[in-house]
Amino acid sequence: MKALLLNCSLEKGHKETDTEQLLDRSALNFQKEKVDVERIHLRDFHIAFGVTSNLNGNDEWPFVFNKICEADIVLLATPVTLGEKSSVATLIIERLEGYHNMKNKKGQHLFYNKVGGIIAVDGGDGGARVAVQSIMYSFSMLGFSIPPHAGTICGESLLNESGVLSAEDNIFQMTSNLINFAEILTFHPIPVVKE
Amino acid sequence: MKALLLNCSLEKGHKETDTEQLLDRSALNFQKEKVDVERIHLRDFHIAFGVTSNLNGNDEWPFVFNKICEADIVLLATPVTLGEKSSVATLIIERLEGYHNMKNKKGQHLFYNKVGGIIAVDGGDGGARVAVQSIMYSFSMLGFSIPPHAGTICGESLLNESGVLSAEDNIFQMTSNLINFAEILTFHPIPVVKE
Amino acid sequence: MKALLLNCSLEKGHKETDTEQLLDRSALNFQKEKVDVERIHLRDFHIAFGVTSNLNGNDEWPFVFNKICEADIVLLATPVTLGEKSSVATLIIERLEGYHNMKNKKGQHLFYNKVGGIIAVDGGDGGARVAVQSIMYSFSMLGFSIPPHAGTICGESLLNESGVLSAEDNIFQMTSNLINFAEILTFHPIPVVKE
Amino acid sequence: MKALLLNCSLEKGHKETDTEQLLDRSALNFQKEKVDVERIHLRDFHIAFGVTSNLNGNDEWPFVFNKICEADIVLLATPVTLGEKSSVATLIIERLEGYHNMKNKKGQHLFYNKVGGIIAVDGGDGGARVAVQSIMYSFSMLGFSIPPHAGTICGESLLNESGVLSAEDNIFQMTSNLINFAEILTFHPIPVVKE
Repeated sequence: MKALLLNCSLEKGHKETDTEQLLDRSALNFQKEKVDVERIHLRDFHIAFGVTSNLNGNDEWPFVFNKICEADIVLLATPVTLGEKSSVATLIIERLEGYHNMKNKKGQHLFYNKVGGIIAVDGGDGGARVAVQSIMYSFSMLGFSIPPHAGTICGESLLNESGVLSAEDNIFQMTSNLINFAEILTFHPIPVVKE
Repeated sequence: MKALLLNCSLEKGHKETDTEQLLDRSALNFQKEKVDVERIHLRDFHIAFGVTSNLNGNDEWPFVFNKICEADIVLLATPVTLGEKSSVATLIIERLEGYHNMKNKKGQHLFYNKVGGIIAVDGGDGGARVAVQSIMYSFSMLGFSIPPHAGTICGESLLNESGVLSAEDNIFQMTSNLINFAEILTFHPIPVVKE
Repeated sequence: MKALLLNCSLEKGHKETDTEQLLDRSALNFQKEKVDVERIHLRDFHIAFGVTSNLNGNDEWPFVFNKICEADIVLLATPVTLGEKSSVATLIIERLEGYHNMKNKKGQHLFYNKVGGIIAVDGGDGGARVAVQSIMYSFSMLGFSIPPHAGTICGESLLNESGVLSAEDNIFQMTSNLINFAEILTFHPIPVVKE
Repeated sequence: MKALLLNCSLEKGHKETDTEQLLDRSALNFQKEKVDVERIHLRDFHIAFGVTSNLNGNDEWPFVFNKICEADIVLLATPVTLGEKSSVATLIIERLEGYHNMKNKKGQHLFYNKVGGIIAVDGGDGGARVAVQSIMYSFSMLGFSIPPHAGTICGESLLNESGVLSAEDNIFQMTSNLINFAEILTFHPIPVVKE
């Protein structure tokens, strides 16, 4: 089983951002359950703007897209500005929406049987719910399945008074549910239903 | 298997609203798959305001709450004003949030293993996505599972140029996915996971 | 000049809620500038559900509506659940939207030349931006004018480490801007423009 | 008086997009009232990602930023995907938020006395309200003033059955209100208020 962790930070390079720290924690949870983890820091790749499935070779989107296609679980982590997901997260959702008419071999949406989760980091901004609402809805409309508690919001201080990562429990719960749903959908893929 | 259809219209009585018409269609899809359908027109019941699990007996919430507890699938249908879900839908989500600290026998959230879907009817208003985003997110945070395409938006005209219900395909797809997920969760309930 | 402060709490009665405390602060700011302040705790009135301008006399909406019509400034304060404004706030916006086709004597929207502000209190919930976005947009579409920083979000703790109301500065800034805009619109009402 | 029209389309070049067509209409309304109109098609400029006021000279943001500083009115037009504003619009809001701590000579926020408007074009997508809510809120929090009906939503067909631009009236009304507010704020700038 494969989990793809997409970091939608605005900065290039693997800096020690809050978003990165939360993905570290999440990756650990996945690996303890023997899930392969691939991480992509999106700003380190050139990805063109557009709502399109046109892989014209002028950017590095084909690499990212292949990783998404291979993954059973996609976990998107975004910083938050004025409550909103980052422009990099918006860009990725737009690119995925470019495939909304494409089908798999069974005639189902391309992203069926994949599971989606969200981490939103608001660094004191205090309004990450807008960001999670938006991404969760887009995931469902793109064909992803959403387990309970699939959105983790991380607020002002990542460390609580005891020096423990305050979002730790939420990330553990989300990660467990993502794995469980991905396992179920592997053995019981969504059936083709005709009216 | 049981599906509960909640009509969050602002009017009392089973008038021929668009919301009602779309729930009719949805009910038919459920029944063809031998799913028991219960419908509640919420405005016909007195439900008190509050974020509380306090069943003080002064309103008819206990009746509605029992129906929600018994259901495998909860489909919430709401009209839309200025893009937003109705005040009745907001009231119901607030009441459900009143249980966010309550656990089932296994120590999991009360609404685990239930599946949630949304119909938003915007009657020309053209902005039902806000409503669906909000309810879908609340469902996930309350412990519900969300299948792909779990939100159906119905726009200006419910009937297309050929006189066919334009949202019909979307409702069929959503209903199928809701049933499929409820079946899977019946046989493979979300496991108790401890860190 | 008149300011109307609408408390959209879910509880009846003037309890010492956070919402009430913030409206106290706001009222003080208005009164220091010689603005008349009227406060309505909406849950203490029976207001029917509906997107309608039909004042049928069976509820106490006419009283509230008259107060809104007389006010130069309307400040709506709401608690927040799962990031969303309260069902009482939703109900009031729906009632106001019932007048979207009504015009004043000049042929302009009924609420032109009124100024709108928002307080959202999230009591540790951490997501009040959704609530403010929603109400601000509705206000603008209903004809209200929105000054800079017209939304005040109050987070987990109303008192900071020094025991000072942390939202105090924001409320002062918002109140000043609301008064300034109301004054300007009194002397320079929005002109009737024809294409 | 100067109006700046920002096109947040994802495509490069001045193609005949719906967004462009609506900005044409808007520009005409401004010019008839003798307002200088400057238009920027943002995708034709290289603007770096970031929530920063750091004008490091490696991108063309200083050009865009100067135009924003000189403008009395900023009208932001965005296409819509899954209900959301474009990634280009998100990027611009993030860059502006980079200045949230900077003040003008009077000690007020940098964008005080500017007026903001929004056009969201949903090309059949049917959910532009999310986009308008988000941008309107950001504008207010950045210090812009928002007149009544400051958001124009353009739906599936830009032309109605009579071949007339259906959003024409809305754009005219918005443009008039933007001009009126900009004039008022020129003669009556927001006063410096101290507690």
